[in-house]
Amino acid sequence: MIDQDLLEPERKRKKKKKKNKKKKKLKQELLQHGPELVQEVVRAIEEEDIEVLDEVVEALHSADLADLFEQLTTEDRAALVSHLGEELDPDVLTELDEVARDHVITEMQDQHVVKAISELETDDAIHLLEDLDEDEQRKILDALPEDDRRAVEEGLSYPEESAGRLLQKKLIAVPSLWSVGKVIDFLREESSLPEDFYEIFVVDPLHHPIGTVRLSHLLRSGREVLVSDIMDTDPKVVPVDMDQEEVAFLFRQYDLTSMGVVDQNGRLIGMITVDDVVDVIDEEVQEDILRMAGVQDTDILETVWEASRNRIMWLVVNLGTALLASTVIAQFDATIEQMVALAILMPIVASLGGNAGNQAMTVAVRALATKELTPSNAMRVVTRELSIGLLNGSALAVLIGGLTAIWFKNPELGGVIALAMVVNVIVAGLAGIMVPLTLEKMKVDPALASTVLVTAITDVIGFLAFLGFAAFFLL
Amino acid sequence: MIDQDLLEPERKRKKKKKKNKKKKKLKQELLQHGPELVQEVVRAIEEEDIEVLDEVVEALHSADLADLFEQLTTEDRAALVSHLGEELDPDVLTELDEVARDHVITEMQDQHVVKAISELETDDAIHLLEDLDEDEQRKILDALPEDDRRAVEEGLSYPEESAGRLLQKKLIAVPSLWSVGKVIDFLREESSLPEDFYEIFVVDPLHHPIGTVRLSHLLRSGREVLVSDIMDTDPKVVPVDMDQEEVAFLFRQYDLTSMGVVDQNGRLIGMITVDDVVDVIDEEVQEDILRMAGVQDTDILETVWEASRNRIMWLVVNLGTALLASTVIAQFDATIEQMVALAILMPIVASLGGNAGNQAMTVAVRALATKELTPSNAMRVVTRELSIGLLNGSALAVLIGGLTAIWFKNPELGGVIALAMVVNVIVAGLAGIMVPLTLEKMKVDPALASTVLVTAITDVIGFLAFLGFAAFFLL
Repeated sequence: MIDQDLLEPERKRKKKKKKNKKKKKLKQELLQHGPELVQEVVRAIEEEDIEVLDEVVEALHSADLADLFEQLTTEDRAALVSHLGEELDPDVLTELDEVARDHVITEMQDQHVVKAISELETDDAIHLLEDLDEDEQRKILDALPEDDRRAVEEGLSYPEESAGRLLQKKLIAVPSLWSVGKVIDFLREESSLPEDFYEIFVVDPLHHPIGTVRLSHLLRSGREVLVSDIMDTDPKVVPVDMDQEEVAFLFRQYDLTSMGVVDQNGRLIGMITVDDVVDVIDEEVQEDILRMAGVQDTDILETVWEASRNRIMWLVVNLGTALLASTVIAQFDATIEQMVALAILMPIVASLGGNAGNQAMTVAVRALATKELTPSNAMRVVTRELSIGLLNGSALAVLIGGLTAIWFKNPELGGVIALAMVVNVIVAGLAGIMVPLTLEKMKVDPALASTVLVTAITDVIGFLAFLGFAAFFLL
Repeated sequence: MIDQDLLEPERKRKKKKKKNKKKKKLKQELLQHGPELVQEVVRAIEEEDIEVLDEVVEALHSADLADLFEQLTTEDRAALVSHLGEELDPDVLTELDEVARDHVITEMQDQHVVKAISELETDDAIHLLEDLDEDEQRKILDALPEDDRRAVEEGLSYPEESAGRLLQKKLIAVPSLWSVGKVIDFLREESSLPEDFYEIFVVDPLHHPIGTVRLSHLLRSGREVLVSDIMDTDPKVVPVDMDQEEVAFLFRQYDLTSMGVVDQNGRLIGMITVDDVVDVIDEEVQEDILRMAGVQDTDILETVWEASRNRIMWLVVNLGTALLASTVIAQFDATIEQMVALAILMPIVASLGGNAGNQAMTVAVRALATKELTPSNAMRVVTRELSIGLLNGSALAVLIGGLTAIWFKNPELGGVIALAMVVNVIVAGLAGIMVPLTLEKMKVDPALASTVLVTAITDVIGFLAFLGFAAFFLL
């Protein structure tokens, strides 16, 4: 994945050449998350080859180690957890997917879990605890040092998926009268700093944020300069109960690396950093894609039973709409009996309507999510979909009408299917845009229910139009 | 969107109360991107109300101003561009969507475009120029100052969607023997710094990166400390030709805010910052979602004609697969003539197979994109899909078999549809996972072609199994 030679600085590379080949190969595998690494680790676990295990764990970034954990079977995972004991880097826990994390925490000794959580930043600790069941959560919380416990409990008191769950309480806040030199001296002396930060906050005596100074601007200013002279006086801050999707939108819109969070009284209570927001962006969009297909966002992590149970619900809803379409067909059984060609052709009209509807719907759902589709331009987009439906419906009508006329040597049948196609593709475009817009207005996630509604509409209209026109014009 | 009261620091808020009500309302609208803002601006443009226009432009962040531009009609947009002249913030150009950007650049005077581009960072300038047609590109390049021109031309020489297109040439690189104090003094004196940066790079005499120091670590260290003592000695760097999707993966995996880019000789030639990577993440995932539905990622920005032309290609491919399914049905025309109930029920089998296949496929496509599905666990995931298919196929079979037996008072027909359903849902699960895996192996984007292939398979198998079993068992 990464070119090994480019990743390694000269000095290190030379040193490594002295090591034996096997180790070199292992290191390369490590950098590539290769399947051979997983095999090697599995072997090492089973043969209790402690040397190799320690080397792997030491060489891997916590995120890569988390990936490795996820790929192990539960037995091997448990063995590796017990081998590592309290050496297990707490950051690995935050990088694990839900299922593997639950499992690893269960396998860890309680005092190790408590130690790990107390070493994490607030937002990561919250992220870890929020998925645990209440008993376990309580047990760990009670064992945490007072300060940590209070910070985590406060975080857990905010709604799920809100800014409060993402915030980290440690930040640098200074009065506006401080000079750059004083800030730097403060940072050098203070021991309890956040692990990383990108800007400092300037606050008034009531701890209301009145500005921010990016570190790069702090560094380029002379010691005697006042922070009030270099601060950005229009700091973007968010209320603690803002939805994380909105928070992510602001980070993207304004290219932020961190942002202050304020409480109901406008006091600065924490900050959110871009790395967490990147995870939120991934999470939200992943959820949208999978929801459109009727799948849980955790599907790939679930057992066969869980995934099966979650997916069947959606399939049963679809069975309902498919039955609805069948009852439409059933109204025309006499027509089909007279002309079996109708049965051969009818899925084409429904299927293409479904595809056209899906195109329009996906564009609409995404445009709503990215705020490109707004009340200001909704009318314009609806008209646009109608026009596209008319154009593409006509094009498909000519194609399928011609093919049908030739295939069945029946120009009238060609005319009927062409007409049905135009109608269904236009209806599909309209449904594709109106359904998500209506759901959004009703505060229902458009990604969740649009697909099934649009398909139901295009199926019903597809069969109704084709068979109806056939009954009317041909028989 | 943002609570106005929380956004505004105390001081500013008091000051503002003195202003008149209309302005207050405008400011609120500005912060909320409300539709009324667009209306107000349109009114101001048409009535040439310069005072309001200037106030809006001054108050808006470049990203919000870009959003505003996107929502205007072409006439109003042109009028606003000409009103702003060279006052138009170059950052607005980088925030605009492709279509609006093309339009705004066409409307701008040439010397203003040149001036704007020379003020941007390399990556933003490249981003702006890469979409222009060659003549216009050449004209602007030739007018740029020598240094800027060379930097942009170099960027444009890298493949599209590669690290080279995202990189910014300005960065801070220091020798390892420098002290923290010396670095800070250098930053204070140097005039040509990047607008923002999050870490400094430590390089050897050949300009190979040997470490990085985050600004927060630089700030908390004493002046006499050597950068070599506080640097991260395993800096993540990428080769200039790495695909942007891989770059984005590394940023996410390692929670990075910036990353060095090296040339073929391992020399540091630029850096990529997280704000650009967030855009890449958005872009890539947006592309995937829309591709799965057979739509261009720029669809919402396209004219009716463009969107219609791009969408019809996908629909014609689908017409092909629908016709294929119809030829399968046509083989059983005699069977259908004898038993019209088959025509009524057959779409159910195909439709549910399609839905089940789409579930498995979407999970697979996403898991491939997020690297949760790898060669190490592919076999396990295939087995999993087979099991889910068997479970859900059986559940649906019982349901639809029972309903059919009751509806048509024909238990044998119920048995046949149940059997066909089990077969099709299992095939659907298998196709849903195998098609994306195979495409990925063939280096074809799974998001692009999976949907149509999976649907073709589930349609054909659905009709074939149901009508075939019916012909065999019932007649």
